[in-house]
Amino acid sequence: MSDTVRYTLSDEEMPTAWYNIVPDLPAPPPPPLHPGTHEPIGPDDLAPLFPMDLIMQEVSQDQYVDIPGEVLDVYRLWRATPLHRARRLEKALGTPAKIYYKYEGVSPAGSHKPNTAVPQAYYNAKAGVKKLTTETGAGQWGTALSFACAQFGIECEIWQVRASYDQKPYRRAMMEAFGGTVHPSPSDVTNYGRQLLAENPDNPGSLGIAITEAVEVAAQDPNIRYALGSVLNHVLMHQTVIGEEAILQMAKAGDTPDLIVGCTGGGSNFAGLAFPFLREKLAGRMNPIIRAVEPASCPSLTKGVYTYDFGDTGGMTPLVKMHTLGHDFIPDPIHAGGLRYHGMAPLISHIYDLGLIEASSKPQSECFAAGVQFARTEGIVPAPEPTHALAVAIEEALACKESGEEKVILTALCGHGMLDMAAYTAYFEGQLEDYDYPEAKVAEAMANIPQV
Amino acid sequence: MSDTVRYTLSDEEMPTAWYNIVPDLPAPPPPPLHPGTHEPIGPDDLAPLFPMDLIMQEVSQDQYVDIPGEVLDVYRLWRATPLHRARRLEKALGTPAKIYYKYEGVSPAGSHKPNTAVPQAYYNAKAGVKKLTTETGAGQWGTALSFACAQFGIECEIWQVRASYDQKPYRRAMMEAFGGTVHPSPSDVTNYGRQLLAENPDNPGSLGIAITEAVEVAAQDPNIRYALGSVLNHVLMHQTVIGEEAILQMAKAGDTPDLIVGCTGGGSNFAGLAFPFLREKLAGRMNPIIRAVEPASCPSLTKGVYTYDFGDTGGMTPLVKMHTLGHDFIPDPIHAGGLRYHGMAPLISHIYDLGLIEASSKPQSECFAAGVQFARTEGIVPAPEPTHALAVAIEEALACKESGEEKVILTALCGHGMLDMAAYTAYFEGQLEDYDYPEAKVAEAMANIPQV
Repeated sequence: MSDTVRYTLSDEEMPTAWYNIVPDLPAPPPPPLHPGTHEPIGPDDLAPLFPMDLIMQEVSQDQYVDIPGEVLDVYRLWRATPLHRARRLEKALGTPAKIYYKYEGVSPAGSHKPNTAVPQAYYNAKAGVKKLTTETGAGQWGTALSFACAQFGIECEIWQVRASYDQKPYRRAMMEAFGGTVHPSPSDVTNYGRQLLAENPDNPGSLGIAITEAVEVAAQDPNIRYALGSVLNHVLMHQTVIGEEAILQMAKAGDTPDLIVGCTGGGSNFAGLAFPFLREKLAGRMNPIIRAVEPASCPSLTKGVYTYDFGDTGGMTPLVKMHTLGHDFIPDPIHAGGLRYHGMAPLISHIYDLGLIEASSKPQSECFAAGVQFARTEGIVPAPEPTHALAVAIEEALACKESGEEKVILTALCGHGMLDMAAYTAYFEGQLEDYDYPEAKVAEAMANIPQV
Repeated sequence: MSDTVRYTLSDEEMPTAWYNIVPDLPAPPPPPLHPGTHEPIGPDDLAPLFPMDLIMQEVSQDQYVDIPGEVLDVYRLWRATPLHRARRLEKALGTPAKIYYKYEGVSPAGSHKPNTAVPQAYYNAKAGVKKLTTETGAGQWGTALSFACAQFGIECEIWQVRASYDQKPYRRAMMEAFGGTVHPSPSDVTNYGRQLLAENPDNPGSLGIAITEAVEVAAQDPNIRYALGSVLNHVLMHQTVIGEEAILQMAKAGDTPDLIVGCTGGGSNFAGLAFPFLREKLAGRMNPIIRAVEPASCPSLTKGVYTYDFGDTGGMTPLVKMHTLGHDFIPDPIHAGGLRYHGMAPLISHIYDLGLIEASSKPQSECFAAGVQFARTEGIVPAPEPTHALAVAIEEALACKESGEEKVILTALCGHGMLDMAAYTAYFEGQLEDYDYPEAKVAEAMANIPQV
């Protein structure tokens, strides 16, 4: 048995194309609909917000899209990311299972987000855009986009939910270190923000409000466009570099996964690892079980309804068919901020509806316990989001201890938790609340979804 | 020209021995002296604090010491660390110089500290020690030792300077995530701490006080030993994995350094990169200029006196010959907490006295400017400490732009700044003070050094 615990790739081995799963699916995903007419929207409807290269990727039927050389040049600052065999965790668990994790925390932002931020900034710069606007909650996405814009000489303006802006100054400082401009949202630089502040100067903000502010600024100036960090098809496609690398690295390790687990909020991290493996499964070359793990308090796949709904809280986006808890559902304040989204990426919802993937949910205290065990054995303090997948990986590995099965488990470790340590402190101090599934709140939100 | 920007090593290529520079030096380093008798101390004098394996490494005359397999197993979680060519920074500077950086921020603690924490925990566990005590300021060293102790099943108890304990809760949470117990210092669990708290319940603490508390607990129980994160010979030796890897990686890059720069506080990061290259220089196989960079406000090498002094503020340690500003000199509160030490590692002082290395100093605002330029081009926000070396690397690269010289510059990027973002915020907000060399304060402290 080799003692290798970390599998890398040389520059020559790095994938040079993103994988688009759409043409490989047994049925096409349902189209997004115009919120007014309920007719399918076309590329032109998206042109005020996104450059045409990204819109064409959003609707692409090509199985692969070449990664531009300028994007590869930036990716190489941290990619290929390492695939680790968690031997020390396996030993602590006493399991015959093999646990692998693909680690995205080595990126500039400390998560998988730059995988799509970099091409989004590139295509916008190529189209002559001078500035990108976006929203951010805890700041992972804003950090990634701020870094990406710096690489292509365009400005980045970020609306950060005011509660996070005030409570998490380190993330804001990261965005500024990379050159971004950060506003607390609601802000006094947009009409919508000023309107809200006039009503309540202490408005703590929300992602929905921040989106509206970022979109307002982008829509009124042809030199400015908007960028989104998850949910959309092209975002998920950019993330497939994770899975493409992992396939090559698993081959180096000489193992084939029996189970792939990833956490799901908007879905881009999960899709990034899972979609290339799903291609292999659909082609009959592998047969892994692929499972999405979501928070018990915000379980869109396991408890939501598969129907048309708005992507944002304010109801301004096109209608997309997805598993949703209702667009105005506000999740409880779990520490995995990246998983607090009312819906699921339409492409993942479609694939789940086709029965190609599984889904389960976990309460946050079990996830933090898994995160601490992982930190003490593997030396990486995980972000709260991927601890959801780690909790399942550990549960499965312990089941293998009972059964004696030598299952090969692969999990997506999408980021480190160095800027989330307050959550660990809350866990250690016993102040972590396990929110149940908020059935009544979801019923209320579901009553407000549009009738299509 | 290859576009490679990141050079790695396979498991098989990883160095398997630490390098001890002592036998290669043209003159032996002066011995430490007993504080009472002023006679050279022997191994037995150190036995109450350290296990014999480490003491023998401290006084070793062997050129190489094999790294135990159990330590290599842990190193492999993150080692070999990458060597990067800073092509995007070079391009932004418009310089013909080539800038390389060896990046230690990928470690569990986010710095080079685990390189010595792991073997120290290993040798203590091997000697039957049940618990290690130590002091920490901002928390880098405490984090590293906490992680290392978890790998060998021993406890870790850390006294953290109370001001940092209160102001930097993220680092404390990291130590706890890895399993360590953290006390604010002064604490009520030691006689010394209780005495100080009785005098002043609001005592903000200092590294000197924290050392005294950690040593008090270790000295009174044969199952407990003490660990130090810099300054000592064996600590510097453990860090030479950095330079040994870098030599192999520079060979892969096809370049030989003309200038090597590293920041110096206690000196372990600088020694780790520089000593293996100094071996090559002494053997005539390379001829790099090797330069230590220290803060203008705490310039032990460039302004201090080479003489016998105490290693700690309280005057409890053996007397060591080093460049010192006086053992009771308290440096101004620059953000590079790891460089706020009154003295320099005796081995580095000796080598500097022999004329084998150069030294210079930088004010902190210039360092932060360099750090921001580095972050925006290379995607890594550096810790405040290594920005001192980056400032010199950038200065030299800009000089090459004038001269046209294609100098090869290698710098030690010993950690990331994700837990130091408050310092960047202070920089952006113009609240960063550039402390001058505190001549009067040093003169006062130098009047208190012991007469040997």
